Amino acid sequence: MKRPTRPAPRRRSRIEATDVRIFSGSSHPDLAAGVADYLGVPLDGTRIAHFSNDDLYVQLGASVRSRTVFIVQSLTPPASDHVLELLMMLDAARGAGAREVHAIIPYFSYARSDKKDAPRISITARLIADLLETSGATHVMTMNLHSPQVHGFFRIPTDPLTARPLFVQHFRRRRLEDAVVVAPDSGIAKSAARFAAQLGLPSVSAEKIRLSDTRVEIDDLVGRQVRGFRRALVYDDEVATGSTMLEVCRLLVRNGVEHISLVCTHGLFTGDAVAKLTSIPQIDEIVTTDTVPIAPEKRVPAMKVLAVAPIFGEAIRRNYCKESIGDLFAFGDVS
Amino acid sequence: MKRPTRPAPRRRSRIEATDVRIFSGSSHPDLAAGVADYLGVPLDGTRIAHFSNDDLYVQLGASVRSRTVFIVQSLTPPASDHVLELLMMLDAARGAGAREVHAIIPYFSYARSDKKDAPRISITARLIADLLETSGATHVMTMNLHSPQVHGFFRIPTDPLTARPLFVQHFRRRRLEDAVVVAPDSGIAKSAARFAAQLGLPSVSAEKIRLSDTRVEIDDLVGRQVRGFRRALVYDDEVATGSTMLEVCRLLVRNGVEHISLVCTHGLFTGDAVAKLTSIPQIDEIVTTDTVPIAPEKRVPAMKVLAVAPIFGEAIRRNYCKESIGDLFAFGDVS
Amino acid sequence: MKRPTRPAPRRRSRIEATDVRIFSGSSHPDLAAGVADYLGVPLDGTRIAHFSNDDLYVQLGASVRSRTVFIVQSLTPPASDHVLELLMMLDAARGAGAREVHAIIPYFSYARSDKKDAPRISITARLIADLLETSGATHVMTMNLHSPQVHGFFRIPTDPLTARPLFVQHFRRRRLEDAVVVAPDSGIAKSAARFAAQLGLPSVSAEKIRLSDTRVEIDDLVGRQVRGFRRALVYDDEVATGSTMLEVCRLLVRNGVEHISLVCTHGLFTGDAVAKLTSIPQIDEIVTTDTVPIAPEKRVPAMKVLAVAPIFGEAIRRNYCKESIGDLFAFGDVS
Amino acid sequence: MKRPTRPAPRRRSRIEATDVRIFSGSSHPDLAAGVADYLGVPLDGTRIAHFSNDDLYVQLGASVRSRTVFIVQSLTPPASDHVLELLMMLDAARGAGAREVHAIIPYFSYARSDKKDAPRISITARLIADLLETSGATHVMTMNLHSPQVHGFFRIPTDPLTARPLFVQHFRRRRLEDAVVVAPDSGIAKSAARFAAQLGLPSVSAEKIRLSDTRVEIDDLVGRQVRGFRRALVYDDEVATGSTMLEVCRLLVRNGVEHISLVCTHGLFTGDAVAKLTSIPQIDEIVTTDTVPIAPEKRVPAMKVLAVAPIFGEAIRRNYCKESIGDLFAFGDVS
Amino acid sequence: MKRPTRPAPRRRSRIEATDVRIFSGSSHPDLAAGVADYLGVPLDGTRIAHFSNDDLYVQLGASVRSRTVFIVQSLTPPASDHVLELLMMLDAARGAGAREVHAIIPYFSYARSDKKDAPRISITARLIADLLETSGATHVMTMNLHSPQVHGFFRIPTDPLTARPLFVQHFRRRRLEDAVVVAPDSGIAKSAARFAAQLGLPSVSAEKIRLSDTRVEIDDLVGRQVRGFRRALVYDDEVATGSTMLEVCRLLVRNGVEHISLVCTHGLFTGDAVAKLTSIPQIDEIVTTDTVPIAPEKRVPAMKVLAVAPIFGEAIRRNYCKESIGDLFAFGDVS
Amino acid sequence: MKRPTRPAPRRRSRIEATDVRIFSGSSHPDLAAGVADYLGVPLDGTRIAHFSNDDLYVQLGASVRSRTVFIVQSLTPPASDHVLELLMMLDAARGAGAREVHAIIPYFSYARSDKKDAPRISITARLIADLLETSGATHVMTMNLHSPQVHGFFRIPTDPLTARPLFVQHFRRRRLEDAVVVAPDSGIAKSAARFAAQLGLPSVSAEKIRLSDTRVEIDDLVGRQVRGFRRALVYDDEVATGSTMLEVCRLLVRNGVEHISLVCTHGLFTGDAVAKLTSIPQIDEIVTTDTVPIAPEKRVPAMKVLAVAPIFGEAIRRNYCKESIGDLFAFGDVS
Repeated sequence: MKRPTRPAPRRRSRIEATDVRIFSGSSHPDLAAGVADYLGVPLDGTRIAHFSNDDLYVQLGASVRSRTVFIVQSLTPPASDHVLELLMMLDAARGAGAREVHAIIPYFSYARSDKKDAPRISITARLIADLLETSGATHVMTMNLHSPQVHGFFRIPTDPLTARPLFVQHFRRRRLEDAVVVAPDSGIAKSAARFAAQLGLPSVSAEKIRLSDTRVEIDDLVGRQVRGFRRALVYDDEVATGSTMLEVCRLLVRNGVEHISLVCTHGLFTGDAVAKLTSIPQIDEIVTTDTVPIAPEKRVPAMKVLAVAPIFGEAIRRNYCKESIGDLFAFGDVS
Repeated sequence: MKRPTRPAPRRRSRIEATDVRIFSGSSHPDLAAGVADYLGVPLDGTRIAHFSNDDLYVQLGASVRSRTVFIVQSLTPPASDHVLELLMMLDAARGAGAREVHAIIPYFSYARSDKKDAPRISITARLIADLLETSGATHVMTMNLHSPQVHGFFRIPTDPLTARPLFVQHFRRRRLEDAVVVAPDSGIAKSAARFAAQLGLPSVSAEKIRLSDTRVEIDDLVGRQVRGFRRALVYDDEVATGSTMLEVCRLLVRNGVEHISLVCTHGLFTGDAVAKLTSIPQIDEIVTTDTVPIAPEKRVPAMKVLAVAPIFGEAIRRNYCKESIGDLFAFGDVS
Repeated sequence: MKRPTRPAPRRRSRIEATDVRIFSGSSHPDLAAGVADYLGVPLDGTRIAHFSNDDLYVQLGASVRSRTVFIVQSLTPPASDHVLELLMMLDAARGAGAREVHAIIPYFSYARSDKKDAPRISITARLIADLLETSGATHVMTMNLHSPQVHGFFRIPTDPLTARPLFVQHFRRRRLEDAVVVAPDSGIAKSAARFAAQLGLPSVSAEKIRLSDTRVEIDDLVGRQVRGFRRALVYDDEVATGSTMLEVCRLLVRNGVEHISLVCTHGLFTGDAVAKLTSIPQIDEIVTTDTVPIAPEKRVPAMKVLAVAPIFGEAIRRNYCKESIGDLFAFGDVS
Repeated sequence: MKRPTRPAPRRRSRIEATDVRIFSGSSHPDLAAGVADYLGVPLDGTRIAHFSNDDLYVQLGASVRSRTVFIVQSLTPPASDHVLELLMMLDAARGAGAREVHAIIPYFSYARSDKKDAPRISITARLIADLLETSGATHVMTMNLHSPQVHGFFRIPTDPLTARPLFVQHFRRRRLEDAVVVAPDSGIAKSAARFAAQLGLPSVSAEKIRLSDTRVEIDDLVGRQVRGFRRALVYDDEVATGSTMLEVCRLLVRNGVEHISLVCTHGLFTGDAVAKLTSIPQIDEIVTTDTVPIAPEKRVPAMKVLAVAPIFGEAIRRNYCKESIGDLFAFGDVS
Repeated sequence: MKRPTRPAPRRRSRIEATDVRIFSGSSHPDLAAGVADYLGVPLDGTRIAHFSNDDLYVQLGASVRSRTVFIVQSLTPPASDHVLELLMMLDAARGAGAREVHAIIPYFSYARSDKKDAPRISITARLIADLLETSGATHVMTMNLHSPQVHGFFRIPTDPLTARPLFVQHFRRRRLEDAVVVAPDSGIAKSAARFAAQLGLPSVSAEKIRLSDTRVEIDDLVGRQVRGFRRALVYDDEVATGSTMLEVCRLLVRNGVEHISLVCTHGLFTGDAVAKLTSIPQIDEIVTTDTVPIAPEKRVPAMKVLAVAPIFGEAIRRNYCKESIGDLFAFGDVS
Repeated sequence: MKRPTRPAPRRRSRIEATDVRIFSGSSHPDLAAGVADYLGVPLDGTRIAHFSNDDLYVQLGASVRSRTVFIVQSLTPPASDHVLELLMMLDAARGAGAREVHAIIPYFSYARSDKKDAPRISITARLIADLLETSGATHVMTMNLHSPQVHGFFRIPTDPLTARPLFVQHFRRRRLEDAVVVAPDSGIAKSAARFAAQLGLPSVSAEKIRLSDTRVEIDDLVGRQVRGFRRALVYDDEVATGSTMLEVCRLLVRNGVEHISLVCTHGLFTGDAVAKLTSIPQIDEIVTTDTVPIAPEKRVPAMKVLAVAPIFGEAIRRNYCKESIGDLFAFGDVS
């Protein structure tokens, strides 16, 4: 007997613009606009203010009645305000009759609080996941979580997308015969190895010993492994103060590396991070994405910022159009 | 047949100190210490910090294993940080095996966001109530909610206590023959009337017309009602910028009132509120409580700050010792 | 770069009749039929009976499989039966595979039980909201809740609609130069003020002192404010025994008012309420709506009953067709 | 190695009276008083009233703060009022800070609505079980559910107790050599068989064909089986109109039975049920319990009402004192 | 006024193949393929394996993004593996963004664990129902549950379909004048009676006394009732070891029955059940369905296996196409 | 003012034997007995069987009414049966009125399914965590989860204990000057480093490349780092087929290591794992624990099995007696 076959899907369906609403919290309106542009729908306004007692006030600027709503918010500083803004926007959309409420969180900062490594602390990544559900989110999209297990903290369907293809594409045009990929810590080792494999490079992993939130030490052993390489691609998920990167680069330089490319998804670059990094002459390049907004004064010539709006936009389109998002997805690793 | 009778309870049982833990968020440690003192137990430490990406880090400073835990936090500015701190402390206590986790929130700022008076906003008081439950609170104690209905937003048992007895006791020693109680808005009218009744005074209600978060207008009609009174007690639940109070006082002065006492539970006094209020010579006195911390520079001579720690402490003691807290409770009104 | 714009929606889409089912509980089938008529779909039958042990039996009369279902039920006397009928109809619809189950509750009587104004009582409005969700309601529409905060008791999306435009339209054709709007209680003061503003009239608020469920007293002060007006529009959300209205009207008459229009959304008129009210010769008119069915014998000549079916029908249509219902909505007030 | 052994429990511990509160809904205060008497604690008062719009008002009459609370309510007519009263009492107890809230429901009428035997109806027994949990019940005790599966409708711990030992004890003193136990329907057949086994009697089962709520027919085949017996004990869980019992008795009489004892747990006896039954001269005796109150005018000489208060009281005592209630329990059958 | 009428539905709508995914667990892929064939959609693959530590690994073989997903799994031996496979497939579908996840469970084995007939056991049918919901099922379809009350264990919409029309159709062509339908136990008596009624036959019920999981005794009384009938149709929901059937058949043979047809929905036939049954020469025929797969070696000539795929396929089609499934449904009985 | 201080706790309180019940599933009764012995309470019996249709039957062997119940079950093969047994035991305990139900899961096998490393799979560790909560667990204790983030999958309080102190104590007496600790994979690198630090040893991490469930390859780079060491302690959380260990050991031997100690918490040793490992002469010792039962035939002379019962027993005692379990806890790492 001949089994039925499924007709091939129409190629590249578009989302139905009249059915969709996209709103941005105050953390990263440019990225939200980029996503909306990709999808060919307008970015609707959001009114956000503080009352005189500092309480937040949030109002969505267009009717969401029975529609599919996307709320774009990165959890950048001030992180607490941006978390609460997001929760209130989700709640407002649900309360106003939205059919689906998607939280698009390009930078889910709290992913780093993913384990109980001291007594009586909160596994806050899990807590925030629960708060998002309580507030009305029906689906979450995010990028390059700090560890792949954080995905399991969400009970609602969640898609952690990956920025790695952007980085692979960026480096693929280069000549990298004498290069090695370096993971600053065993936690990122597997991701770095996959990135290296896609570029046909070897990879090594340092071991970071965290002394405090801003001070780290790198185990010297990795030095032995990088000897002989002239170029290193240091690969991490997030750079905040840059102290880890700094330590790794110093070690690489001590071991003879002459050219360093820093690669990171979430470029926080707090304080004087950029200045510290660019003070090392061997650092030729800082490659990052715009999951967090990068202020103009931090955009030094050596910095290359890759746009993630097309990735989020495409994932939203496919989710809406019943197409697989598998090739945009981070399966079991952080970046 | 003779029905059984219940033996009279032992009078004033004490809480079992080894079974209880009290922690304070960063908003109002003095008040938390006052509550702990009242109960005769130490205030345990809490470590609160920001990571370099601005995420919060919270650690409870003493084992809570199988114990009864009280977390004291007012939602003062910075409000979002204080909300998240509280949620994380609740989550940490639950995760560390606490048997009960009580959220003591002397000033629940978001109570003012209690209705949907514009399209597509969040009824945030309800949202926060749900977030508290999601984070692990098993019971809430708070004071003088902006409207009595906010009580119904909580699904977990919640006790809104009242500060009114403190105010009644404060004024009872005075001679008030020629005084009237004035509510600046119909929303507080019933509470003001009850306050007035306890002092044997008449009460009138103004009608506030809110032009923006910081600008209000008071309907002139109330002026007619206060004529002939020399003294007014203006009664509200919260003073932030003081603009409402200012408008009311000007109207009272225009109508012949010579002495004004301002009475409010939650004394935020943001910006130059104190200066503005004390610039009116007829304002003799500002009577408030310490549900929010009042900076020393705002503590002008005319200000009298009444302590609420004994009320919260007593409510905690009775709840623990199976005694009724009815006479500490705000039944159906805000203050 | 030119931002995309959203195409204008097709005007006045219709609901898809084959996708929708409307059922009525036993409290107000005429109103349900009116809603169905407005939408151009038939009202499907419901079989409701009591077993010999007084248990309810409820059966929906048409397949709801994968459809959008609307259940219309006002919580009129016998209130407990009507509550349980509604819960059972919701449960039956969910269990039979309905895709969405909307509870349309024109008169949500329990909204009056919205605070804990005595020890150890239930905030029953919140309880009923939770029971509706437990029973399968995915959305609620109601009208003129007793206080705007009751909206926050519902965790599922809820739309409290307003009947005020019906009243404004009714009075707009009249000459009302010498009229004042009177709120019988500070709880309704803000709504009355908005109603007055829409008619260009002044408004005053009395203060009701409730002695028992059926006996009230009105503070005399309001009398001073109405002097000089020949006509009063007394505005309330609900009239049951009519005792409040009666007291207010007597006070108005004592203060020289010659013509009184009573305006209320929910006209229960229990017992001899109509007789009592019409015994006052100055009451020219009782204007109400049909959120509760009004028996023919109570429909005296002075009574004008405005139909709410078009409001509910239109809100249902818009919700179904992804149009905003903002202008049918009661933002932050009761009527 | 010698394994540790557990010390024998202290015999017959008592509940701690100061820790417990017992309240009664309006359906059966005598039974509640009996339970309280058994336990040696007072029955606390409950204030129950209807507002003028027919809404219920319920207030518990004593502080429940951190205590163990028992609410006793049978779901007798008016069933809807009694259901809502119970839900409100549970909610009030939870809201007022009770530690545990036990619903004691001697007659859970809705157990009969235990399956979907027609399209688009509610399995109301399950719905009510969910509503009890939503309203705050933490534990349920009930008696002789219509089918043993109803137990599984409850997610909270539930104990269906059995009245059968009362009936066995009642008949054990009699001479019953020529008797047979008759189940009026296959649904009660297994219970009747167990009852018969405990008395050393044979049992047979009729098959009821329900024509409507009040009209049934009994399959004649059972007649063949009872021939030769002079005495029959007809055993059912509930008698409402008595029509089933009547049909069975007529059939028994036609087949030569001379003495009939009717046995049922829940004696509703609605309408003229008692008169109808006593009109059959062969019915010597009606044995029932007081799970529902039986009006004095229905207590004919042939009726024997057995008290269930000791069973509920003993189950409460054991549950409180950590003793097994296994021998009070209905394992897998209805009575 | 003329009421609107609903247009007649288009006849026999088809499901939209591009919107639907059907997956099979490892218990019964043939049945799943049959359902897919009926619907005209392909059966998508599932990869199922055990890790070396025996943990299960399950992967759905086609994108389910925003689609309607059906998971087909009978709870056949090894039952625990099949339960967990099903839960994991549901969870995988939900996590991968399916819009609806339907669990199609033709044989829900645990329905037999439907009551607490011994102390401290789980009512496992209820537990599994809850686990299905927790794992992401939004709807369940099953067949001939052991008791009709099990339906109420599910909080999500659930459709217990019936195989009885297949049996009626099978026997309708026969000459059955001298036949009686026999229920082996009072639990199946009502279903057997309905089956008998549809064939115009009388029915009797035996009473099974279960000595252990594999040993039963049949009360002899039923023998008296079957005397005079030459043919019996023994009707049960499930045959596992066949011991019940065996006992019943022996009793029937002892009482003169010459031809026996065994009828059962779920034909487990564990161990040597088929051999035992076919050793009785009076058993002419075993009529069952393929809700569980029947191994070729058990398919003796006397066995007739009726296909249920068309019933499940049709129910799925109607559910998808908003058509009533009432006539496929088991209202209040098991088969 | 002098702050109150808390009195020092009584030292080493004991659990109250009459309040506690301990039951064992069928996976590891010896361990359960060891825990019970440690606590000085008897291990209560559990009756576990399969019905003829392979469904599980589970009965707890002693009353749990209002008691604290501990259920001990490792998720060893047959894993699905052991998962379901555990869920049913939890459900039975809850349903029978237990006050608290603690799941003690020494080996939580599914912790390895902690991320979505392929499309459309279940993050089964999270799913099982949710199923445990649904089934009634109020608290979980487990040991050495595969990754520290798995802790965050549990919403109920969960304590992942650590076996590392047992290993440290075991090796502390040895002379280990020329030894290095080797992690077979970057996922265990941090734990291995901590273990090494406690012994004053250096540590290195290999990188495992998994080819299939049973075949792995080890990156050769680690070889360079171990040169010069004579002794290696290979440290992993779980050994199943032993293929990873085998590969690592071969690489170590190739690089000159002469003595190898294998250290792992969960010693599954499936198939011929023990034979394969002992075939390498350099492996002197296999040190593991008894979180899973190890069959006598696998207990080769080189194997040392450390008992975990005292760790679980002590954690249970402290949790019961309100003492901190911090020093038994695995903060942020797997072993």
